[in-house]
Order: sequence, then structure tokens, then C-alpha cells
Amino acid sequence: MKSKQAVVLLSGGLDSSTVLAMANDKGFSCHALSFEYGQRHNIELACAKNMAKTLGVASHVISRIDLSAWGGSALTADIEVPKDGRDSGIPITYVPARNTIFLSHALGFAEAIGARDIFIGVNAVDYSGYPDCRGEFVEAFQTLANLATKAGVEGDSFTIHAPLLEMTKVDIIKRGHELGVDYSLTQSCYDPSDSGNPCGQCDACRLRDAAFFEIA
Amino acid sequence: MKSKQAVVLLSGGLDSSTVLAMANDKGFSCHALSFEYGQRHNIELACAKNMAKTLGVASHVISRIDLSAWGGSALTADIEVPKDGRDSGIPITYVPARNTIFLSHALGFAEAIGARDIFIGVNAVDYSGYPDCRGEFVEAFQTLANLATKAGVEGDSFTIHAPLLEMTKVDIIKRGHELGVDYSLTQSCYDPSDSGNPCGQCDACRLRDAAFFEIA
Repeated sequence: MKSKQAVVLLSGGLDSSTVLAMANDKGFSCHALSFEYGQRHNIELACAKNMAKTLGVASHVISRIDLSAWGGSALTADIEVPKDGRDSGIPITYVPARNTIFLSHALGFAEAIGARDIFIGVNAVDYSGYPDCRGEFVEAFQTLANLATKAGVEGDSFTIHAPLLEMTKVDIIKRGHELGVDYSLTQSCYDPSDSGNPCGQCDACRLRDAAFFEIA
Repeated sequence: MKSKQAVVLLSGGLDSSTVLAMANDKGFSCHALSFEYGQRHNIELACAKNMAKTLGVASHVISRIDLSAWGGSALTADIEVPKDGRDSGIPITYVPARNTIFLSHALGFAEAIGARDIFIGVNAVDYSGYPDCRGEFVEAFQTLANLATKAGVEGDSFTIHAPLLEMTKVDIIKRGHELGVDYSLTQSCYDPSDSGNPCGQCDACRLRDAAFFEIA
């Protein structure tokens, strides 16, 4: 039996699925955490469930939170997802404080079950322009985690793992292939059709398709 | 019309109600944020609604999140609330990462509506023993907020206000009285009866009752 437990944020996309495989490979008993957060589509939750089952997890919690109560993003409000490539700056698909919210729930979950390791699939190389995908953000969250919690204050520290932080999308996919991740089960599109097909034109589709094209 | 907007975390208890009155008094147009988080009782939400209405807010969002999915506290799981006074150390009523979770949602709300000020009623003097009620925690969250968000990264910084941090319970109540807070509308008890009456014996009731006794 694996002795060390970890909480892994799992969206059902390419990055977080690879992170789950990496955490498993490091010998952690993984508890996956996904969110139903008022996003435009729920196909990613179906992918997350499928991936958790395929790669194997100790448990999978789907937590319902409501970020659409205040909107502010093309992913949670009635704003069009851009389809004509990247502008400079932070894109409209940025969801205010999303990774802070996700990590804070992961922290509560981890502390409650005795896990001290939290994995998140943020990536700063294929830089999405999201402030909460940078190393400084991850470090600041770890500092906070160890001040905010009973465990942290008592010296039983939390570690926030962001193993994809410095990897290119191509390297991520190669590592996933080594670990047996079936990427046909993942969904990255910001604006899939009702039947769940990717649009092929949003930033997430473009990044993903370019990486698979390079590998092929 | 008030020009500066703020998000105020409002539980419906004595402390957060006072904070709302203080933020109003400072000239902020206040957006109250409360949570239905799988707590044992919902009387506090009724109090929060009533208080928001009585003191006046620009809006009041009640966000549903599920912290009971993983339990770990007498306030969210089937663990008895202690009734025989304070032990040393962090009490079982500590909810893993609760204030981190609440502040992260407040941060998303604030960024989405253009508010850059967030108020929270944490207090380190009548020290509850909660790690996430200390000044270091509040400072670390503010640092995180300004790394995690589009606004923060663009130099439009967030400020986390914790005006009760260094006040005694007696001073808090006196300040609230000056600002016209009707404390009969608030609820602090961790374990009220089904009809909403406070137990009079949990830590929260003891602290509250002692302060009102001293003032009377």
C-alpha cells in the first residue's frame, strides 16, 4: 500500500491528467479533486471522471462551487471565447482568482484527510498569460498554506507541486506518453460543441493541436 | 453615490457584522459575501441576510460551496462541539483552510466587480486558536492576491482589511454600538438549537457572553 497521500487538482484536460500520472508515478496515493464551477460546459468533468478511473485514484471528489455568481470571464459568463489566436496581455478566458480558489479547496481537503502534498498542473512556458500559472504564485500559495492551517503551524508542512511549470507542451505530452496517459480521453477546449467536440480555434485548442502536430 | 467598492465577508455573527458597519462607515459601497458551506446549521445565513439588509449593502451574494465533502471539523462533520471551555491548542471547531477558501472566493468576486478592498472579521486578541485568524495569515493572503490576479499583476492592488485584528471583544461591541449595530440580530453560537437559540456553552457563546457581561 502506498503510504504518502496527495491531493491532485484534475480538470480532465491534458495538463492535469499528466500531473495525475506523474503523482502516481512518484508513489503517491492520489485523491483527485475536480470542480463544477459554473463553467460553460461540463464535458471536462466527464473527462476528469474517466481519467481518474483510468489512471487510478484513491478517491475522486467533485466539488460544486459557484464562480458564475459574479462572472468576469469568458469561461463563466456570457462573453464570447476568442477564436482568432492570442493577443498580448491576459486573455478574457482568465477566471478571476480561479487557481487560488481551487488550491484553497485542495488545501482544506488535504488537511482534512492528512495529505501534505498538493499537485497542480500550471505551466508558465507555453505561457497562457494567466497570473495564477506562474512560479511566484505557486510559492506564495505554499507560504500561505503553511500559515493558514493547523498542520502548517504545527510544523507538518504542505508542499505545492507544480511539475509542469517549466515544461513545454511537447515535453508534457511526451512525459504523459511514457506514463501511459491516453490523451484521447482528455478535453482542453474552452468552447466545445454541445456534443463535446473541440472547436479547434480557441487558444487552448491551438496550443494543444500545435504540440501534437510537432510530435507526430 | 459612494465611489469605492468593497467586498465584505459576512457570516451573520458579531464580528463580521461589526466589520460591515465599519466598512460602510469608511465610505465603501459594500458587497457582502456569505457562504452556505455545509455547516451544521443555517441560522447564521438568516442572520447574515437580515444584517445585510439592516446595515445596507450594494449587493449580497450567498455562495454555495461544499466543505462537508471532506469534513475534518466539528462545524462541518459529525463531531461533537466542545461545551466545557477552552483547551489549549487549536480547537476541533477549526475548519481546514476555511478563511483561505472564503478569502479566495472574495478575491474572485472583488476582481470581477472592480473592487480592490476586501474586509474580513478575523481577530487575534480574544485568540480563538485558529491559525487563519492571525495578522501573518492576512498579510500572506494579500501578497498572494496581488500575484494571483490580473488586477494585482497590472498594479491595481488589493488590500485585505482586518480591522478587528487587534481589538478585544469588548472593544468590538463598543465600536459596533457607536455604529448602530443591533447585536440581537447576530448569531455566534457553534451549535444552536433547531429553533436557532444559542447553546450558551460553546467557545463562541462563552466569549460573546463574557464580553456583553463586562459591558453591561
